[in-house]
Amino acid sequence: MKIMVINPNTTESMTMHLAHALEPLKGPGVELTVVNPAHGPVSIESAYDEALCIPPILELVKQAERDGYDAVVIACFSDPGLHAARELVAIPVVGIQEATLHVAAQLGFRFTITTTFAKRVPAKIESVELAGMGARLASVRPLDMTVLEMDREPARTKARLMEVAEMAAKEDGAEVVILGCAGLAGYAEEVEAAIGMKVLDPSPIALKTAEMLVSLGLRHSKRGLFAQPPVKLIK
Amino acid sequence: MKIMVINPNTTESMTMHLAHALEPLKGPGVELTVVNPAHGPVSIESAYDEALCIPPILELVKQAERDGYDAVVIACFSDPGLHAARELVAIPVVGIQEATLHVAAQLGFRFTITTTFAKRVPAKIESVELAGMGARLASVRPLDMTVLEMDREPARTKARLMEVAEMAAKEDGAEVVILGCAGLAGYAEEVEAAIGMKVLDPSPIALKTAEMLVSLGLRHSKRGLFAQPPVKLIK
Amino acid sequence: MKIMVINPNTTESMTMHLAHALEPLKGPGVELTVVNPAHGPVSIESAYDEALCIPPILELVKQAERDGYDAVVIACFSDPGLHAARELVAIPVVGIQEATLHVAAQLGFRFTITTTFAKRVPAKIESVELAGMGARLASVRPLDMTVLEMDREPARTKARLMEVAEMAAKEDGAEVVILGCAGLAGYAEEVEAAIGMKVLDPSPIALKTAEMLVSLGLRHSKRGLFAQPPVKLIK
Amino acid sequence: MKIMVINPNTTESMTMHLAHALEPLKGPGVELTVVNPAHGPVSIESAYDEALCIPPILELVKQAERDGYDAVVIACFSDPGLHAARELVAIPVVGIQEATLHVAAQLGFRFTITTTFAKRVPAKIESVELAGMGARLASVRPLDMTVLEMDREPARTKARLMEVAEMAAKEDGAEVVILGCAGLAGYAEEVEAAIGMKVLDPSPIALKTAEMLVSLGLRHSKRGLFAQPPVKLIK
Amino acid sequence: MKIMVINPNTTESMTMHLAHALEPLKGPGVELTVVNPAHGPVSIESAYDEALCIPPILELVKQAERDGYDAVVIACFSDPGLHAARELVAIPVVGIQEATLHVAAQLGFRFTITTTFAKRVPAKIESVELAGMGARLASVRPLDMTVLEMDREPARTKARLMEVAEMAAKEDGAEVVILGCAGLAGYAEEVEAAIGMKVLDPSPIALKTAEMLVSLGLRHSKRGLFAQPPVKLIK
Amino acid sequence: MKIMVINPNTTESMTMHLAHALEPLKGPGVELTVVNPAHGPVSIESAYDEALCIPPILELVKQAERDGYDAVVIACFSDPGLHAARELVAIPVVGIQEATLHVAAQLGFRFTITTTFAKRVPAKIESVELAGMGARLASVRPLDMTVLEMDREPARTKARLMEVAEMAAKEDGAEVVILGCAGLAGYAEEVEAAIGMKVLDPSPIALKTAEMLVSLGLRHSKRGLFAQPPVKLIK
Repeated sequence: MKIMVINPNTTESMTMHLAHALEPLKGPGVELTVVNPAHGPVSIESAYDEALCIPPILELVKQAERDGYDAVVIACFSDPGLHAARELVAIPVVGIQEATLHVAAQLGFRFTITTTFAKRVPAKIESVELAGMGARLASVRPLDMTVLEMDREPARTKARLMEVAEMAAKEDGAEVVILGCAGLAGYAEEVEAAIGMKVLDPSPIALKTAEMLVSLGLRHSKRGLFAQPPVKLIK
Repeated sequence: MKIMVINPNTTESMTMHLAHALEPLKGPGVELTVVNPAHGPVSIESAYDEALCIPPILELVKQAERDGYDAVVIACFSDPGLHAARELVAIPVVGIQEATLHVAAQLGFRFTITTTFAKRVPAKIESVELAGMGARLASVRPLDMTVLEMDREPARTKARLMEVAEMAAKEDGAEVVILGCAGLAGYAEEVEAAIGMKVLDPSPIALKTAEMLVSLGLRHSKRGLFAQPPVKLIK
Repeated sequence: MKIMVINPNTTESMTMHLAHALEPLKGPGVELTVVNPAHGPVSIESAYDEALCIPPILELVKQAERDGYDAVVIACFSDPGLHAARELVAIPVVGIQEATLHVAAQLGFRFTITTTFAKRVPAKIESVELAGMGARLASVRPLDMTVLEMDREPARTKARLMEVAEMAAKEDGAEVVILGCAGLAGYAEEVEAAIGMKVLDPSPIALKTAEMLVSLGLRHSKRGLFAQPPVKLIK
Repeated sequence: MKIMVINPNTTESMTMHLAHALEPLKGPGVELTVVNPAHGPVSIESAYDEALCIPPILELVKQAERDGYDAVVIACFSDPGLHAARELVAIPVVGIQEATLHVAAQLGFRFTITTTFAKRVPAKIESVELAGMGARLASVRPLDMTVLEMDREPARTKARLMEVAEMAAKEDGAEVVILGCAGLAGYAEEVEAAIGMKVLDPSPIALKTAEMLVSLGLRHSKRGLFAQPPVKLIK
Repeated sequence: MKIMVINPNTTESMTMHLAHALEPLKGPGVELTVVNPAHGPVSIESAYDEALCIPPILELVKQAERDGYDAVVIACFSDPGLHAARELVAIPVVGIQEATLHVAAQLGFRFTITTTFAKRVPAKIESVELAGMGARLASVRPLDMTVLEMDREPARTKARLMEVAEMAAKEDGAEVVILGCAGLAGYAEEVEAAIGMKVLDPSPIALKTAEMLVSLGLRHSKRGLFAQPPVKLIK
Repeated sequence: MKIMVINPNTTESMTMHLAHALEPLKGPGVELTVVNPAHGPVSIESAYDEALCIPPILELVKQAERDGYDAVVIACFSDPGLHAARELVAIPVVGIQEATLHVAAQLGFRFTITTTFAKRVPAKIESVELAGMGARLASVRPLDMTVLEMDREPARTKARLMEVAEMAAKEDGAEVVILGCAGLAGYAEEVEAAIGMKVLDPSPIALKTAEMLVSLGLRHSKRGLFAQPPVKLIK
């Protein structure tokens, strides 16, 4: 089974961080490739960043299918290009936000999502509402750090995560904390040990969801939302 | 007051159709420019088409602000790039779908949206749910025509619209019909006259919403969802 | 274009305040008349006040249509009599609360509504839920002032508004503040300048919505919620 | 225990019909008075009719409290003036629609409401949504009869009710049918016997709800939605 | 009229407490029996406790019907076995949580539920969401006491209730407080007098709801959710 | 990794059917045990059947943890005892309905659930609403067959499934069909091939979800809904 994980930003150190976090978790017989597009923003922190990173992601997704990959994971917690990617290919495409919300909903009643800074809070609430889980959202709490700061300063990032997770538990009634950024891959276990609270790392969950879909032969329905786009001229 | 209307696809005949439909409706003192990007798909009929048309739209939006436009309208009924555009500029950016849903909600209880073909139905339902208007949606009904067919065959398009609008009224309890495609601009009056049912043409509504916002000095809040994106390297 | 704005209470100083606030904002060629009923409560601060003011409002609405007005605005933030008025006439009737919620939803993700005192908070929440915007409501915050106090004490009112708007931004995550009372007409700009937060003044928005509907020839659907009431004996 | 039931329209034959239907159902020791206002529409079939009947209802409600009544029932399936009445008095005020929805929700999962004609369907859906029971609504089905026709033609009314209730069961999945008009009081048993489907008659349910509240000493909370209105000048 | 009230736990002192609280409230001609199963947990404070108490409850419910009871009340605020019981018998079965939520919704806009300890908060929120009343829930507040402590220490329990009810009013905007445990039966009046806030005692409300249903001849619909279970072998 | 799958009914032929369907799908290194309780109903087709099967299920779940199993799957599409089981043990417990709804939501926009007979439709709708996926439910369609008939008559069952799945696609807009009964395990592929529509088999999805959770070290949060029940006397 060949799975491609796409880091949608162009920061290679983050791609390597992600590869190191995921490699030990892949299932037996899984061939894992973690890539990032050559062009696009160095981090994804706005709808604008998302808009710019999507066309190169879609090229990678199409290439993955041509190259015989069995599934693709888009590893950014805003799931950029997820619907378009599912239209384009027949292999499963998994978004780390969507996959994680659906697992979180099975592990407790209310969850908190950590995000970068206050600006992103409304977008996270909107995603949760769209998934029908508004009643399950304890809170969205910003770390007040950029994605690149998280990448450069692991110690400060973990300290900040613990602080925020504790507030989520004490003040918001959270039962589960979701690390709302692929750049936080690999920190869940340590934070969970420190605060005694369930912490979810989205990228591994998405990888395992992809493995599950492939092993069951499951693919996106091609009858509606993810039907093949009409062929047409792109000027 | 200068308003730019962007047809997000690259079919110039549609841009001219739109300009002809909107020009007579613009308010006194309004300078109207209808444009389309030079590159991108010739019509927008999938999430993939949306993904491709967004980056060129965003360039046009930024250019509009630099050129002293007071507002921008994105004239495709899936509102491609709306959130990203609002992040990038301080002038109001209006989406024809969003603006029309909010007007429709004031003109009756339940509305029907016409769309191109069955594949697009789920995406329309999703948009309406996200706007909080699920209880107001009578139905989404496909015309079973492509955008380019609508552009080429006005007579057949109008006939099909009347047929679909009548079914919406009789079978779905619709009080209002929304023409869910900018390519249908200018047909509302005729269809309305024929079937005696309120028919909404999204592009004019969006143009007038833009005029309203400008005349009241209203702009998007820059405190949350539409805050300026962080400055960063785009490789 | 002739538009009648109805102040539903019987306090003439508020009618004049409203006229002064709206007159400079009306579009070119718009003839604006601001009136209040001769009989009814001096302010609208309860469902009881609403019940009493509605029959005289409806007489004014019918008179407006007979006198050739093109649209009517009901200028009280509980939209008293809105549905009944729409049943009675063919010209558009705009409610300042409804029109403003639909504009607010396009300017940011979450909004706060200011109201008079704590008693009115549940009624405002109920209106927002009914409009399908529960997920968009940051908070409803009372000014703890009566409508007549707001009319008599502009300085204290503005100070209190700034205080409340700042709390909405800091504690509730509001991106937009709605001045939830027609008596606050004209204060938005000053408050916005002071606190750097988008502030919406409902009466001008409703006036411009009315102008938009008239200029596009849009009217309420007469097929359902707003169909003409059956003719019958009123004893 | 003294309970006043208000028929909000001015058709005395309907008031007597209601009194005859309710008198045998009142609890031991209950003194029942069924009245109608002297002025107002002869039937309630629109938001306009509701608007006109409310002020006289509110006078009756206030009089009921002054005269020592223990509770009031407003017996029209649009619950006209319910919130305002609850503000004005300390005794419980029960609406037949609201009380019946809350009982129906305990007797099955999905219910159908019968109404007068198609125009009223959206208003019924809106009420059910506002009560949070959108997922429980199987359908709203019009009888295509006016309130006065129902009053004059009991045989045709019952036949039509049976027809509509059967369609609700077969086509809409309804488990319970609600007779959505006080003018249908007394028909439930017969229809239920004929079609083998649970049929709810709102006025008796509201009467018994009033008896329950009184016997338990329960009254509306005066801390929020139903707080006493501020005293003020009514011109 | 014969009504059986089932205390689902096996603590007889609580059954007697409940009987003493309900006996004075029963209607004229009502024969009241309060029982508890012989086997099962001594208190219900988890989904596990609920699971264990349900089979014995269902035996009691079937016995009640065979013995000619007219209705059954299940007196635990998680309504254990309610749907199954309704399937099994033709007489009405009332749950104290469900009945109370539906009365609370008629007495104010937002209510607070008190519960035992923090673990139970999510389950209460889930019940309220399922009833469609998410927008009406001010808060769920734990007393931080077990059910048996409430039974043993009435003075401390009342003191704690007052404390929590005051916080609900001041901080959460509650208009009504629901005593979310049958073990609190009889305390509502005293707490209400002390804090000037509407307090609902679920068991009396459920008893009166049962009396109402019986007196109106109302029973659960047998067409859907509560249809008779298929007869089958139970090994 | 040791996983126990519990068939909650006492029909051993169904347990064996399930074991045969799942055995080929288990991951490398997974030791799979499929069991059923010794006592309880022979099939689960009502809330009553669920109530009876839960206590024996819970004993099996506790035994599984004591015996060193890493996860448990409850293989009945009403997820009987799921919350209670999660309270009792620290190992993950997966429900086939819940797991499947969360996968279905990632494979298309709207899904149809097939169920046994009409009586079960409301219970399925209720489950989907509780999961927040009301907008995603195309329909619930009964096969009009009992669970034991499905077990005895595979050919008729498949034929009926194809018929129902086609109606779901043509009339309800379904993109995905969920086989809403563990007794249908193994039929998905054949039906999918015949009708060209995505068909989901819940038991394999739940097995793979359990494998995913174990491989990631994920467990239910013990801070809220699934916290350990208080220790107490069970009489």
